[in-house]
This record gives sequence, C-alpha cells and structure tokens, in this order.
Amino acid sequence: MQETIVLRYGHRIARDFRVTSHCALVARAFGAKKIIICGAEDPALAKRAEKISKHWGGSFQVSFTDQWRREIEKYRSEGFKIIHLTMYGVPVTKKMKQIQKNKKLLIVIGSQKVERAVYDTADLNISITLQPHSEIAALAVFLDRLFEGKFLSKEFKNSKIAISPKEKGKGVLRQTG
Amino acid sequence: MQETIVLRYGHRIARDFRVTSHCALVARAFGAKKIIICGAEDPALAKRAEKISKHWGGSFQVSFTDQWRREIEKYRSEGFKIIHLTMYGVPVTKKMKQIQKNKKLLIVIGSQKVERAVYDTADLNISITLQPHSEIAALAVFLDRLFEGKFLSKEFKNSKIAISPKEKGKGVLRQTG
Repeated sequence: MQETIVLRYGHRIARDFRVTSHCALVARAFGAKKIIICGAEDPALAKRAEKISKHWGGSFQVSFTDQWRREIEKYRSEGFKIIHLTMYGVPVTKKMKQIQKNKKLLIVIGSQKVERAVYDTADLNISITLQPHSEIAALAVFLDRLFEGKFLSKEFKNSKIAISPKEKGKGVLRQTG
Repeated sequence: MQETIVLRYGHRIARDFRVTSHCALVARAFGAKKIIICGAEDPALAKRAEKISKHWGGSFQVSFTDQWRREIEKYRSEGFKIIHLTMYGVPVTKKMKQIQKNKKLLIVIGSQKVERAVYDTADLNISITLQPHSEIAALAVFLDRLFEGKFLSKEFKNSKIAISPKEKGKGVLRQTG
C-alpha cells in the first residue's frame, strides 16, 4: 500500500475550522498517514483529530507549517510524488494506474485560492470532476480510488470503539479495547 | 442512469454555509439532480449554486424545507428508495449492486446530530467507511460509485465555461457558450 501524506494548502483559524477538520478526518478514514496543514497553527483542530484517533484507532498525525514549498521539497527529496488535486487537472481515471505505481505520495489539496506555483511544482495536477465542488470530496474520491475501496469496511488497530453496522435502524457502537 | 436527489438533514444559516455549499456542489458535480436542504432557508446558498450552474451548465436545483419526514414520504410515494449515508450503516460495497437496480434514489446525508427516526425510516443505512469523517466526502464517494465514474470527466450541457485540463501547470478555462 502506498504511503500517503496529505498537504492542505491554506488554513485560517475559526473560519476554516470545520472544512479543514473534514479534510483531516477524511485523510485518516481513507488511509492517509498524516495531514500537514499550511496556515495558522490550530491546536483545537489537532486536538480534535487526536481525540478521534484515540477512540477510533490508528496512528494518524496532524502537523502545521507556514512553508508549503519547503514541505513539498522535503518530501520530494524523500521520493514522494507530488499530486495536486484541482479541477484544472487531468481526470483521475486517466492517471490512476500510473499513480498507483509510486510507493510514496504527497497529495496536495487547496482552498479557494491556490497560487499558480502549486500547479507548477506538482508532478501531476489531477482532477476529480472538471467542476467546482469541494477539496474534501476530491480527497475522499481520490483516496477511495487509490486504495480501491480497502478502507470502506476497515477497523483501525488500537481502537477503543467501533461500529457494528446495520442496514435497518441504527447500528451499534461497541467497545473494542 | 438513476434519478438521484439529495436530502441534507440540518442546516443553520451562517454556521453551516460552507459545509452545506460543499454538499450542494458535490451533489451537482457528481450527478444528482437536486438538493433539498432541511433547515433554515438560505437565499445566499441557493444563489451561489444557481450561479455555478449558470456558468458551468446543467440544471441542478436547490430547495429548502423544514419538514424532512414529509419530503421523504413524498419521494417514497413516487417510487424513490431512501438511502441514508451514515457511518452506522452497512458498507457500500456490499449493497451497491442492489442499489443500482433502483431507478430513483433519495440520498439522505446528515449533519452532526441526526435523530434516530432518520435511521428507522430509511430503506437502507449505508456507510462510506465505518469511521467518523464528513458527509461531503460520503456523498461524493457514494455518487462516484453509483455512477461508476461517469462524472469524472463530464462537461455539462448549456455551460458558458469549461476546463481544458493539464497535468503539468494550470489548465485553462475556456468559453463554451
């Protein structure tokens, strides 16, 4: 399985709390190892993600930086391919087989305004639809396709709780550790 | 192709503007015909979605209601299957073939607190991972799988602008109408 890290370009405290939280939880649930948030350091957000991992398992990490270029170059030098998700990119279906051959991926997701240098520095600009929608959705669909659905019914290691799913009525939360 | 309508349970003006906007744009981009928002009527949100459709094409609709039960029963009586996306539901991979046999689907997505009656009234409770993450992501992955990727490179009818994608550097917005 590819080692996958998400770089969230742009985060403003308070205003972006919910959207960036969704990005972090999606990254975790769909199999990324870490999210790096480029923007204001936001302890409440890191705490929220930490609390989710404590209960639901896994070893997902959150970090902050104000230097997106430095992060990209650092990961590039460690052998990561840089994939920027944007509606201006090539449809994911055309490139997924090629992408899956890489062992390490840094997935860059934007916010409303992403500077041109991000498009230029990425190894691949990939679109999840050619329409305006949501970086949260783009990340989820990309990771779902990258890992071919492996995370759709996964329980994480070291969880304290997990779900017993139910198609009629509400499923049940159960203790696992 | 299945006729698909999204019902967003819960919307508070201002606080939920961005998350509900993402839900609406995802519904549109991934092939739903309409979103019904249960909660406060929010003209700014409707206007935003309308503006996107005007430029990017298609005939996506937004409506509001304060009566989620009535909407569900109305669509049920018209032959829609009610699918509630929730982490407490059965993994999507187990049910997608069965779901695809329906011609009309009402996809219910929640917000943080969804009352139990929603789980009870749904024909199927379906999970997109068994982990906490994002209704925006759940909707996108569900629709991407429902329509088997058909919307990943689609241009909508009656658009004024569309994208010429590029893998290196930034793709180009072009006039289409």
